[in-house]
Amino acid sequence: MGKVHDLALTLAMEADEAAPAMATADGSRKNAALLDLANRLEKSARRVILANRKDATAAKKAGFSPALLDRLSLDAKRVSAMAEGARQIAALPDPVGRMLGGGLRPNGLRLSRISVPLGVILMIYESRPNVTVDAACLSLKSGNACILRGGREALASNQELGRLIALSLKAADLPERAAQVVGVADRELVSALLALDKLIDLVVPRGGKGLVKTVLEHSRIPVLKHLDGICHTYIDASADPALAERVVLNAKTSRPSTCNATETLLVHRDIAAAFLPGCLAALAEAGVEIRADPEAGKIAEKAGVRTVAATEEDWKTEYNDLIISVRVAPDIGSAIRHINTYGSRHTDAIVTASLAAAERFKLEVDSSSVMVNASTRLADGYEYGLGAEIGISTDKLHARGPVGLDGLTTYKWLAEGDGQIRE
Amino acid sequence: MGKVHDLALTLAMEADEAAPAMATADGSRKNAALLDLANRLEKSARRVILANRKDATAAKKAGFSPALLDRLSLDAKRVSAMAEGARQIAALPDPVGRMLGGGLRPNGLRLSRISVPLGVILMIYESRPNVTVDAACLSLKSGNACILRGGREALASNQELGRLIALSLKAADLPERAAQVVGVADRELVSALLALDKLIDLVVPRGGKGLVKTVLEHSRIPVLKHLDGICHTYIDASADPALAERVVLNAKTSRPSTCNATETLLVHRDIAAAFLPGCLAALAEAGVEIRADPEAGKIAEKAGVRTVAATEEDWKTEYNDLIISVRVAPDIGSAIRHINTYGSRHTDAIVTASLAAAERFKLEVDSSSVMVNASTRLADGYEYGLGAEIGISTDKLHARGPVGLDGLTTYKWLAEGDGQIRE
Repeated sequence: MGKVHDLALTLAMEADEAAPAMATADGSRKNAALLDLANRLEKSARRVILANRKDATAAKKAGFSPALLDRLSLDAKRVSAMAEGARQIAALPDPVGRMLGGGLRPNGLRLSRISVPLGVILMIYESRPNVTVDAACLSLKSGNACILRGGREALASNQELGRLIALSLKAADLPERAAQVVGVADRELVSALLALDKLIDLVVPRGGKGLVKTVLEHSRIPVLKHLDGICHTYIDASADPALAERVVLNAKTSRPSTCNATETLLVHRDIAAAFLPGCLAALAEAGVEIRADPEAGKIAEKAGVRTVAATEEDWKTEYNDLIISVRVAPDIGSAIRHINTYGSRHTDAIVTASLAAAERFKLEVDSSSVMVNASTRLADGYEYGLGAEIGISTDKLHARGPVGLDGLTTYKWLAEGDGQIRE
Repeated sequence: MGKVHDLALTLAMEADEAAPAMATADGSRKNAALLDLANRLEKSARRVILANRKDATAAKKAGFSPALLDRLSLDAKRVSAMAEGARQIAALPDPVGRMLGGGLRPNGLRLSRISVPLGVILMIYESRPNVTVDAACLSLKSGNACILRGGREALASNQELGRLIALSLKAADLPERAAQVVGVADRELVSALLALDKLIDLVVPRGGKGLVKTVLEHSRIPVLKHLDGICHTYIDASADPALAERVVLNAKTSRPSTCNATETLLVHRDIAAAFLPGCLAALAEAGVEIRADPEAGKIAEKAGVRTVAATEEDWKTEYNDLIISVRVAPDIGSAIRHINTYGSRHTDAIVTASLAAAERFKLEVDSSSVMVNASTRLADGYEYGLGAEIGISTDKLHARGPVGLDGLTTYKWLAEGDGQIRE
């Protein structure tokens, strides 16, 4: 434990030392590092792929699943995509130095609230090595120093990528240690890092729920996190059935593994008999398993669509799969209650032609994204125009919903006067 | 433990049930409750003072210090001040429903980011019963439900105040349970409440460092907190000595018990011999004990001002008293390093006539408030024009520095379309 603890402390202290130079670097220097990295990645693609092959070979021997192997593996196309990502982040506006508020006070004090970097960010992620580059670029652009702790299975890839990142920082006259790839795949090291709340300002776990929960349990540092994505689409009595069906199909089937995919379809009783047969048939056609409450089940049965009986557990489940639970709601109030009770306050949508229903839904649904006549799948940093996405936060404090580069900044109050004192 | 746990759960569940009605209440109804409370407090002043007398008598018997007794005691003037506070909060703009961002997306989705209440807030505070009214008013204005846990010694006062608050909520047709005064002075109840992170969204401890640390240690809920206030004033070589002396005197002596009082004076070597004798004499005259580094000590000695030798511990100490530590800095860089090393990132000031020095100080000092030619004592929600002050946050996430009503809100993304799906 002593040795691991020392290593964690060294990593954090070096990042903390690099942080001021990053925080005060102007945008052009940060962008120079990002563009240098993009070019360097393309020029060094072969070395990156060679290092990755070591990881892939070891993973294959260790019996990794084909899906995991795919996530781990890099080819020329994937390396190019990383370079392209770095260029895109360089092209974004600088999140540091934005004027967020202030003004002239009655005593003549000139007050301004401006965005500044958080300081040191710890990124913890799993097998995909491209996260190393992505996380380093986000941290760099937002003027932070970062510690990058990827999966044990991607160690060789991440170290090679870390080497390139350090070279690009150096080329732009920024501290090399501003982005440190952790070279030791030790779980105790993560615990040791998570205790260093005096040196590290934010932890961003990127990966499955298991990872997030582990980080949450052990961290003394604030965590920018995504937990559950139990999203609903509610079809109001006044909805246009064709529009509703298109939205539901997209919300469930366009990428069911994502957190913003709809898991539960709620349908107003007055439209259920007219809407459900066509919509459920289309879902079934798309390969979706339908878990229905008794009322929806009867309608489906009449229409010849096969369903399974939904249990209480279904309303609380994030399937991340081609499964949908369906419930008939006697009115909009009960639909909203269902969402606020069983949902995860992530993203919920109403399909309606009624202004009153839309207004009520927007007001009463307590979720980070509330959609009207749109697919829940649109809750996303890119779709919202945030540029790079740090993730989707399921917390209410600091950042809520899709988080852009701003999520890696805080602010500072500047008060400038000519001798003002407190009366 | 079982019984206490059940009570905590009941309190939190009732607050959680009251939260949606508070969140959707319009501003006029919330203000009606606040104005009703102001009138009710004035009309019921005698009852409030009678209840307070019970607390004061018990506290006297228990041997409370005169200072504590004073903080606890209410008279007609203090009850009027509470009523005035409620009226002032009513007059502030509604922090809920502000448009914070958004715009039309390329696919026609109309995006808006609007402020919404956090939900349920737990306020934990000490002996001053006026915090009960203040906290309830802030929570009400920001559309939150709150649980108010005051000091054991103010129980009778707080319960009477809680009764009035409930009546005012009812009079405005808002849920009575939207502000619950905890009627049990049990420490285990606090621990039980602090575990309910699914029902309570934020904890605001208001009081001494001991209270804050205890809450931090036990809470699973995010804490809006104030910890240390080790503030510095740095006198640059180019400073106007008269202006500098006035600022330092105010920063140290105008109210030394506050968190934004200056604890350490840093002086550029080039101005030390000219500036320190007069300034230190004035501080000594004002009753301030001076703890000097060797260089400042020698200058003081020559000038006939008595000092004590500062130790390493002094640089890390928040005196909250008429004591100041003084250090001569060879240059602005070492002054900034001192601040970033020993400070608490609260509020730090430079006095200078040099634009370059001011710019460098603003950029490099990593504190929530950075002052130029102004007293650190001005770091304050009222001085910053935030209206009511929740407190001063020493955290970087969510809210930093002086926190107004906005600190009790989060935001929600609204996305409105006409059938948009994810391509």
